[in-house]
Amino acid sequence: MRRVRPWSVLGRAVLCAIALAAAAPVCRGQVAEARTIDLPAPRQSGGLPLMEALSKPSTPLDLGSGRLSMQHLSNILWAGSGGGRAKADASSAGAPAPRSTEIYVLLKAGAFVYEPASHALKQIAAQDIRGLCGLSDPRWQAPVTLVYVVDLAKSARPGAGEKELGAAMDAGVMAQNVSLYCASEGLSAAERSVSNPRVLARRLRLRPDQRIAAAQVVGYQQQ
Amino acid sequence: MRRVRPWSVLGRAVLCAIALAAAAPVCRGQVAEARTIDLPAPRQSGGLPLMEALSKPSTPLDLGSGRLSMQHLSNILWAGSGGGRAKADASSAGAPAPRSTEIYVLLKAGAFVYEPASHALKQIAAQDIRGLCGLSDPRWQAPVTLVYVVDLAKSARPGAGEKELGAAMDAGVMAQNVSLYCASEGLSAAERSVSNPRVLARRLRLRPDQRIAAAQVVGYQQQ
Repeated sequence: MRRVRPWSVLGRAVLCAIALAAAAPVCRGQVAEARTIDLPAPRQSGGLPLMEALSKPSTPLDLGSGRLSMQHLSNILWAGSGGGRAKADASSAGAPAPRSTEIYVLLKAGAFVYEPASHALKQIAAQDIRGLCGLSDPRWQAPVTLVYVVDLAKSARPGAGEKELGAAMDAGVMAQNVSLYCASEGLSAAERSVSNPRVLARRLRLRPDQRIAAAQVVGYQQQ
Repeated sequence: MRRVRPWSVLGRAVLCAIALAAAAPVCRGQVAEARTIDLPAPRQSGGLPLMEALSKPSTPLDLGSGRLSMQHLSNILWAGSGGGRAKADASSAGAPAPRSTEIYVLLKAGAFVYEPASHALKQIAAQDIRGLCGLSDPRWQAPVTLVYVVDLAKSARPGAGEKELGAAMDAGVMAQNVSLYCASEGLSAAERSVSNPRVLARRLRLRPDQRIAAAQVVGYQQQ
């Protein structure tokens, strides 16, 4: 991870990289070569006291469409993937446990998969496919849609039905971390239905044993 | 909810109530008449700053067997059921949304179901059935086992498989709230496997459309 400061400079550079990637020649909306975007280091201190974050009413109806800063996106993905708790779980078992749920990130500039180990986004598609999650009207599109994708091949539970339940629970854990982070930062987050999971799965290039568990839109509160 | 202070007095009274319930005549381990235990009011402020709670390594291996205070149990169940955020979600839709996942609470004194509306425990069984979740050796038994039970009849998602995924996600959300609360308070929480879900379902008097999604043990850290 690059340690360039100030982050605003890196943020602009990253946004340029996203714009360039979006403008690059593509084949049916998929990027010819996987591009990786390093995120700024996540903030690992501060925030609302936990009981206050838990007390705060969720406000899913006031989601604005303003573009989220790279620092907020970094914090959201760090929280969503378990923060420092996920690492500890992995090391206590002696070896990193394979994650059974991954976060895909849909931005105006394309679709990405979040890689927690490198805290980076790997591009999957160069087109804006946020409209596949619930609302296609651009006026209602949040800047970021997170798609929680269950990987049944990596689930530790036995049996097909059990694997899906366990992985869906993981997705709930991750989405709740994001929801509480948003409560703490005054951002908005809301679950959103996936209007056509098959089409979305194809656009995200998912394997047959990967399933879309849920989608969550995140953004600043509407002014 | 009673507002008696100090809580320690109420705590003792409640523990007596549990002990009395456990000593009451029972039929095959089930209580003849449902007893209700009012929990002290949950603490809704304070706690670790969110990003620090998310940074804190989870410590599932140092779980002690010391009895949890009623105040801690109250806070855990309030957090687990969504805190103030669940209520807001319900009211924003105009009417309380039916919960698709309930928390069952296994204590030494018996098994209970948590009722969020009244913040109370309703007794289901008078026997200690914590051994049905993973470890039967009393030396390894945490004071509290939470069992997340999915109610498919109440799930808003369409289709059987979808309902289970949605409800399992809810269980993940709830278990993560408990896990973060424990991180914030210096308690321990860990997921535990259910050795025989059929037997546990029978002891908890679950209907066929209720499924056990997961179990989580909670307690003080071992000294």
